[in-house]
Amino acid sequence: MKIVRFNENRLGISDGQKVIDVTGLFGAGPDEWPPVGMNRLIRDFAQHRGAFERRLQTEAGAPLSSVRLETPVPWPNKLMAYPVNYHDHATEMASKGLASVQGYFLKSNSSLSGPQDPVVLPALGSGREIHHECEIGLIIGKEGRQIAPENALDYVFGYTCLLDMTVRGKEERVFRKSYDSFTPVGPWITTADEVPDVADIDMQLWVNGEPRQKANTRDLIVDIRQMISIASSASTLYPGDIVATGTPAGVDKVVPGDIITIEVANVGRMSVPVVQGELGENIVFAKPYEFVRAH
Amino acid sequence: MKIVRFNENRLGISDGQKVIDVTGLFGAGPDEWPPVGMNRLIRDFAQHRGAFERRLQTEAGAPLSSVRLETPVPWPNKLMAYPVNYHDHATEMASKGLASVQGYFLKSNSSLSGPQDPVVLPALGSGREIHHECEIGLIIGKEGRQIAPENALDYVFGYTCLLDMTVRGKEERVFRKSYDSFTPVGPWITTADEVPDVADIDMQLWVNGEPRQKANTRDLIVDIRQMISIASSASTLYPGDIVATGTPAGVDKVVPGDIITIEVANVGRMSVPVVQGELGENIVFAKPYEFVRAH
Repeated sequence: MKIVRFNENRLGISDGQKVIDVTGLFGAGPDEWPPVGMNRLIRDFAQHRGAFERRLQTEAGAPLSSVRLETPVPWPNKLMAYPVNYHDHATEMASKGLASVQGYFLKSNSSLSGPQDPVVLPALGSGREIHHECEIGLIIGKEGRQIAPENALDYVFGYTCLLDMTVRGKEERVFRKSYDSFTPVGPWITTADEVPDVADIDMQLWVNGEPRQKANTRDLIVDIRQMISIASSASTLYPGDIVATGTPAGVDKVVPGDIITIEVANVGRMSVPVVQGELGENIVFAKPYEFVRAH
Repeated sequence: MKIVRFNENRLGISDGQKVIDVTGLFGAGPDEWPPVGMNRLIRDFAQHRGAFERRLQTEAGAPLSSVRLETPVPWPNKLMAYPVNYHDHATEMASKGLASVQGYFLKSNSSLSGPQDPVVLPALGSGREIHHECEIGLIIGKEGRQIAPENALDYVFGYTCLLDMTVRGKEERVFRKSYDSFTPVGPWITTADEVPDVADIDMQLWVNGEPRQKANTRDLIVDIRQMISIASSASTLYPGDIVATGTPAGVDKVVPGDIITIEVANVGRMSVPVVQGELGENIVFAKPYEFVRAH
C-alpha cells in the first residue's frame, strides 16, 4: 500500500492509481498546525490496515494524478541521516581529503519538501557547489529504544525516495544540508510489506535523464537493521521518524533548470526540478569567521 | 510571564509562584500525541496575552511547587545549536586540538528532558567522558525566513535554561549529543519582555554547588540577533523552535550522583541529577568501524 499526503495536508491511501482520502481519521487537513496527522496515521496504521485494504478494493477514490502530492511526513520527531554509507562513496570522498565519523547526524525538518516541489538553490553568491545525494528514506512505525538488529525491521513502517541536497564546504554540515527544500521526499511511503528484501534494494538517480548514481543496499557499510539499532541505542525512535540511509558514489552538482529523478525499486520514483532562489545569503558563507580549532 | 508544561503535557501560565492551567485552549493534555500544544500556545500567545495577564492577577491557580514541571517544548520543528560560541571556550577547545566550523547543527528532539528529570548517562562501557555545557535556550515565537539581525528579536518568544550534554569523542557530534535526556530545558519559558538586554545576560553553572561555568552574552562570538539571522537564512523558523546558543569555558565531566545547577539571570534556575542508565551501547562506541576520510 502507498500512503500519501496531498492537497494541503490531506492524508490518503493509494494503490498507485487512485487515492482514497482518510484525512478525517487522523485530525489532519489544511487547518492542522503543526501538521502531525501523518505521524498518527503511521502510529495507528496496524488497526486500520484491514479496513484500508477493503476500501482500496471497493471504493472508486480519485485518480492519484488529480491531486498534488506533498512531502509525506512534514514534522517528524527527527530526520536522521547516516554519513558516507556506501563503500564506493567512502572512496570517492576520501580522494577529496575530507573527514567523517560515525553515528547519525540530523537534517532540519524544515528542509523537507515534496515530490512536486522544486529544489530551490540558495543565493550564496560565492560559487558554491550544491550536490545531489540519492538515498532511501526509512519511515519508523513504532516507538522503540535499544532495538536489536534482529528485531529492527519490526520498527520499519515503510520506505520512500529521499534526496539529500548539500552545499559543499567546510562549515557545519548540518547547516549546509538544512536549507529549505534540501530534503525532497516522496512520492509516497510504500509500506514495508512491498519491499521483499531490505538487503537487496536497487536505487538510481538521473540528472536530465543522464545516470549519475546507482546502488544496491547490499553495498551499504552500515546496513538498514544496524542503522535502526545504532540510532535507537542513543535515541527513542517515534512513529514518523525518518532515516536517510546514505548515498553511493556519483554525487555531483546541480544547476538551475536541471531535473533530478530518483527511483527506488518497489518503492517509487519522482522527478524534481532545480530552480534558483533569491534567499539564503548569510555571513557564514559570505564572510566566514576566523575558523576556530575546537570540538 | 512564565510559560510552563507540567503533569503530562498540561500547559500553564505562571508568575513564578502559582500556575494557571490553560491546557484546553491549545489542545494539549495527556492524550495529545504528538505533544505539540505548546507550539500552538507560542504561535497564538499574542492574542491571549492580555487575558493571561488578567487571569494571573485575579485567579488563585495552584502553587507552582505542587506540579511536576516538564520540558517546555517537547516536539519543536527543530532544536538548533551553535557550536563553540564564546571566545573563552573556543580557546579551551582549541588547546585540545579538535575542529569546528560554522552555522548551526541540530540535536534530536528526543534528547529533550525537563527540569525535574535526571540526566541519564548511557552505558557506553568505554570509559568515555560525558560533559555538561551551560547554555541559554531561545524560543522562537513567529514563523520567518531570512530575518535581518535588526529584526531578529521580533521573532524571540522567550528564553529558558538549557543544558547541552555531550559524549566526548570523534564520532558524529550530533549523535554524541542526542542521547535521550541530553538536553534538559526549563524550568519554564520566560517571555522575552522580562529580559532587559539580550546582549547582557548572565548565566552560570555549578556541579554539586561548585562553580564550573560562568558567562555573559556580551562575550558571544555570534550574538543572539545574528544567530537568528544565520539560522533563518537557510531554514524557515517556526513557533516553538529552540536555539541553543553555545557554551562558555569550563565544560567538564559529570558522573552518577552529581547535581547540575544552571541559572540564567531574569530567566530561571534548575537543578538536575545525574544518574547511570543501562541503555546506550552500540557498535559505534564499542567497536568503531574503520574511520573513513570523507565529507
